[in-house]
Amino acid sequence: MKISAAREELLAQLQTVSRVASTRVQALAGVQLIAADGRVELRATDQEITLRVPLDAVIEREGTVLLPARLLVDVVRSLSAPNVSLEQRPAEQDVELVAGNAQFHIRTLRNEDFPAFPEPESDGVVTVPARAFVDTVLRVANSASRDETRPVLTGIMVSASERELRMVATDSYRLSVKETTLEHPLVGGFEANVPARALQELARLVQQLDGETLSVGVRQNQVVFQLGEVVLSSRLIEGQFPNYRQLLPDSYEHELSIAGSEVTDVVRRIALLAQKNAPLRLSFAPGELTVSSQTPDIGEARESLPVAFQGEPFEIGFNPDFLRDGLESVGSGDVLLKLISPLRPGLIQSAEDGGFLYLIMPIRLNV
Amino acid sequence: MKISAAREELLAQLQTVSRVASTRVQALAGVQLIAADGRVELRATDQEITLRVPLDAVIEREGTVLLPARLLVDVVRSLSAPNVSLEQRPAEQDVELVAGNAQFHIRTLRNEDFPAFPEPESDGVVTVPARAFVDTVLRVANSASRDETRPVLTGIMVSASERELRMVATDSYRLSVKETTLEHPLVGGFEANVPARALQELARLVQQLDGETLSVGVRQNQVVFQLGEVVLSSRLIEGQFPNYRQLLPDSYEHELSIAGSEVTDVVRRIALLAQKNAPLRLSFAPGELTVSSQTPDIGEARESLPVAFQGEPFEIGFNPDFLRDGLESVGSGDVLLKLISPLRPGLIQSAEDGGFLYLIMPIRLNV
Repeated sequence: MKISAAREELLAQLQTVSRVASTRVQALAGVQLIAADGRVELRATDQEITLRVPLDAVIEREGTVLLPARLLVDVVRSLSAPNVSLEQRPAEQDVELVAGNAQFHIRTLRNEDFPAFPEPESDGVVTVPARAFVDTVLRVANSASRDETRPVLTGIMVSASERELRMVATDSYRLSVKETTLEHPLVGGFEANVPARALQELARLVQQLDGETLSVGVRQNQVVFQLGEVVLSSRLIEGQFPNYRQLLPDSYEHELSIAGSEVTDVVRRIALLAQKNAPLRLSFAPGELTVSSQTPDIGEARESLPVAFQGEPFEIGFNPDFLRDGLESVGSGDVLLKLISPLRPGLIQSAEDGGFLYLIMPIRLNV
Repeated sequence: MKISAAREELLAQLQTVSRVASTRVQALAGVQLIAADGRVELRATDQEITLRVPLDAVIEREGTVLLPARLLVDVVRSLSAPNVSLEQRPAEQDVELVAGNAQFHIRTLRNEDFPAFPEPESDGVVTVPARAFVDTVLRVANSASRDETRPVLTGIMVSASERELRMVATDSYRLSVKETTLEHPLVGGFEANVPARALQELARLVQQLDGETLSVGVRQNQVVFQLGEVVLSSRLIEGQFPNYRQLLPDSYEHELSIAGSEVTDVVRRIALLAQKNAPLRLSFAPGELTVSSQTPDIGEARESLPVAFQGEPFEIGFNPDFLRDGLESVGSGDVLLKLISPLRPGLIQSAEDGGFLYLIMPIRLNV
């Protein structure tokens, strides 16, 4: 392999692709450079996610090399010459990188240890608007579990058909649902439990590349996203994802509309005194909501704000982080808070966006 | 104690003072609020350094409380009301903080465990220009040792008299000296080995507060810096600081002038392949300097640049980080590099600033 490219282009593409490279497994800490069929592609993977990005380069000799991703990024970043050439030297088992007067010989990693990547297919691929897709991801991703012992909950259940795009995530303490109505009906559809991390990487790519159209190909146990020439694939998560409709209560006792930014600010500051797993306490009385917290040996906090509550006063406890996540997910505008009783889940909705639901389990309060 | 203050002022002063608070010892993780003699002061210490900053506040009742610094900063930052009141409640062993509708009770720490602070004195105090003082600190601070087993080298030897301000730091691998000529002669003078960390905190304070005049009071085993109403003190380091003049060679074989930013860039990038304690190799030949490096199993790098070298070619090795530090300390303009032979220290100077010296020990090269 022998190629040359502009330093800036090479650096940008290397930085994009190498985010996915594993930091744990040596062969996967590499970035693969493939010059074939008249084009150059950079590849990286951590075994779960694969990413391929194109590189605008002049090919003098085709071939494939695997180089340590982090070192290569550091070297290319440090260069001041505008052009970089890379040439494989099989006998020396390295790549010669030349830029201006600077010459580097970087030992190659074993290509054989690098996995094959799935090829994008055109069969069964659904085209979705990229921005609407990642906006939907970002509304629910927080609720996905980080607990690898329950893999099914580490994914986001994505379904798309006609004009409806729906994503659901839950860690069993809270559940986020976002239904986005698309401007144009889709051709085809899919349903898949995609690792939240893969979708978050995809969201970064869409934001960075300002991509407009995203192709989604769901296969047996794998999904392939294509954004122009950039291809991200991920394994799918198997197992039964919870049926969220069964988790949603049929009706609520109390429905309150509250100024979103105000209640979020109150929750943020009162949560500072809910340390060591202490709950945040919401006390409802006619016309008033009081948010309070207490941590033994540290202190306590409380703040009231007006709400249109009527009926018997009651108190309900929530995990402060989960409550804050839910309120922040609403975005701008008023929050609708729907409650039944102290031991039943509460629902947070956006007054402006009926497509968003955030269900949160209560914490039992002592006293 | 009962005081009230503007939230922004309180936050700014708390953030300034709490940088010094210890994160290790509980009583020293506090910020002390003292309302006395018609003024309010915030105090923090980590036992080595003490810092006191004034707070513009209305005093309703004088007194002294000690509160957890980090929590107090977080709480004040989270507030949205413009004013904050703080009232000690001795019976509850806490402070009631009220801002708008928000009410916090924060448990106080034991005041008795917080050390007394040295009082600034006017005796023997020397007034120096603050900006020149910290610029001098920042030129040499990198060379101070971080190795607590040789405490004498963790300080910067500061001496000031007449129009000369001199600072020296060394970790025994390199030595930095910066002599600054002052515009106006000082009244009085001092010499003290001050912990580098204390001087770096002082530099931050001067930059942040844009202070002009710094008062320096050196006592038995302590130095007190006063910058307006802000007072930073530090213990002094005892023991014999190396006599730097004895370390400087009397004469050099080679004196080379090199474009500073160019050689610094070359060293930065070639150093990327000097991993695992590998040295950076400087090879001098007539008209040319080649910088090279090699790390087994990783690779190698080299780059040449023109220099006005004459005589027999020779090679010398340096720690890449220390060489880079020295070149970066020169700042803008040409670098003067003075060498004797491969096993004698090298000297880096600024072509523009004769007051700066950076002496660096070589590493013996194999082959």
